[in-house]
Amino acid sequence: MKPLIMVTNDDSVNAPGLYRLIDVLQEFGNVIAVAPARPQSGMSSAISVNTALRINSLPDYGDTRVFSVNGTPVDCVKLGLAAVMPRKPDFLFSGINHGSNSGTAITYSGTMGAALEGCMAGIPSVGFSLLHHSLKADFSFGMPFIREIAAKVIENRIEPGICLNVNIPAKVEPKGVRVCRAAKGHWSEEYSRYLDPEGHPFYWLTGRFVNEEPDADDTDEYWLGNEFISIVPARADQTDMEAVKHIRRLYDSDREL
Amino acid sequence: MKPLIMVTNDDSVNAPGLYRLIDVLQEFGNVIAVAPARPQSGMSSAISVNTALRINSLPDYGDTRVFSVNGTPVDCVKLGLAAVMPRKPDFLFSGINHGSNSGTAITYSGTMGAALEGCMAGIPSVGFSLLHHSLKADFSFGMPFIREIAAKVIENRIEPGICLNVNIPAKVEPKGVRVCRAAKGHWSEEYSRYLDPEGHPFYWLTGRFVNEEPDADDTDEYWLGNEFISIVPARADQTDMEAVKHIRRLYDSDREL
Repeated sequence: MKPLIMVTNDDSVNAPGLYRLIDVLQEFGNVIAVAPARPQSGMSSAISVNTALRINSLPDYGDTRVFSVNGTPVDCVKLGLAAVMPRKPDFLFSGINHGSNSGTAITYSGTMGAALEGCMAGIPSVGFSLLHHSLKADFSFGMPFIREIAAKVIENRIEPGICLNVNIPAKVEPKGVRVCRAAKGHWSEEYSRYLDPEGHPFYWLTGRFVNEEPDADDTDEYWLGNEFISIVPARADQTDMEAVKHIRRLYDSDREL
Repeated sequence: MKPLIMVTNDDSVNAPGLYRLIDVLQEFGNVIAVAPARPQSGMSSAISVNTALRINSLPDYGDTRVFSVNGTPVDCVKLGLAAVMPRKPDFLFSGINHGSNSGTAITYSGTMGAALEGCMAGIPSVGFSLLHHSLKADFSFGMPFIREIAAKVIENRIEPGICLNVNIPAKVEPKGVRVCRAAKGHWSEEYSRYLDPEGHPFYWLTGRFVNEEPDADDTDEYWLGNEFISIVPARADQTDMEAVKHIRRLYDSDREL
């Protein structure tokens, strides 16, 4: 039986990257897309609470049924699983994002929010991102690699509790693929400050990622900088088991206050 | 010098839990609050992109200056650090959330999104949540324990890369405090389905958390069920270093496609 593959993204059902991903995946199984009606970049694992969510059926794309949801990427996964997919899908692929999700950007990424949600539902899940923000970005160099990675995921699955964060250099033919860790870093100059016509300030998110370990040769930033595709395995469960042991003696207590 | 303490939450600047947390913290240092103008439950680590953010100065609460931001909890932390705080704060406390953030709820929690953001900025950070959704929830049983935990954090700080997810049982005097791991689980029956007046369906998020390891005695769900406060140390970096090693042989490749 052909695998059932769910596809979503955070750039919306209108983003070209979604359809480039479907182009690859139709070869491997039955693909159904459930994507946000509007752009959801930066939505992380946000869910819509106290909101009426709707599912809209859109025209098929090739053999792929396409649906939109007026919510976040995680809403698309949750509601897609609950009310669109005919059964639990065998795989979930998210993307191809128009823009990088390397380094600490994974934390804010709606693309990876969706992949983590699939992972938490027990579905082998992967997010793909191209290091180019434009909706006119050229995905062609990355396509054979995305196909290769998808084939490996579909053949080997992914261990439970882990999903893959795949970033793809833009405008060059990648030199290969490297599994690595997320670079530690931070954003600097995060806001532009403006004055509105009445002279009151407002702020607009901007900034640039500062890699705090530029000399490390095992990070996604390093390999992307060397024109390789990076694959970071990301854990859904954020508990630090080592810290559980360390800090127990400090905080564990019984009632005595 | 007294420590500088930043406080935020996800229930908004109008939520009583924010002020109960400030009540505790004013004893320990100079407290400044930067909280969302409107409720942001379920916003995870979402950031507002392509949006004009504003900072509003509100009346002081005791010795605490209070500001609101028209964005997410992470926006409050980022913009608070960039444009409100006189210097990098020594500590960040988020909450007290009106509602549980135990188990896998941490993934969706705006309270913990803010704490993780503080952690990523190198600030020892803690999120507090009470297992009661009502804005009229009674925090009094938890207050001495919150004070005790805050005192320990301020004395000992927290190791870099980790923040603390503290959940507090409601309506009972806690029996004590336990450091533990997040219970694995999932939500079931996640959506209520309705028909609008024109007969078109819409969906509303609901559901209940199913603890998939009810017999484990080292999880937050276990200890909360036994009327203890749970503390889960959460990692900001989601890279699974073991998986980096496992999957390298499968995915690493050089150009040959």
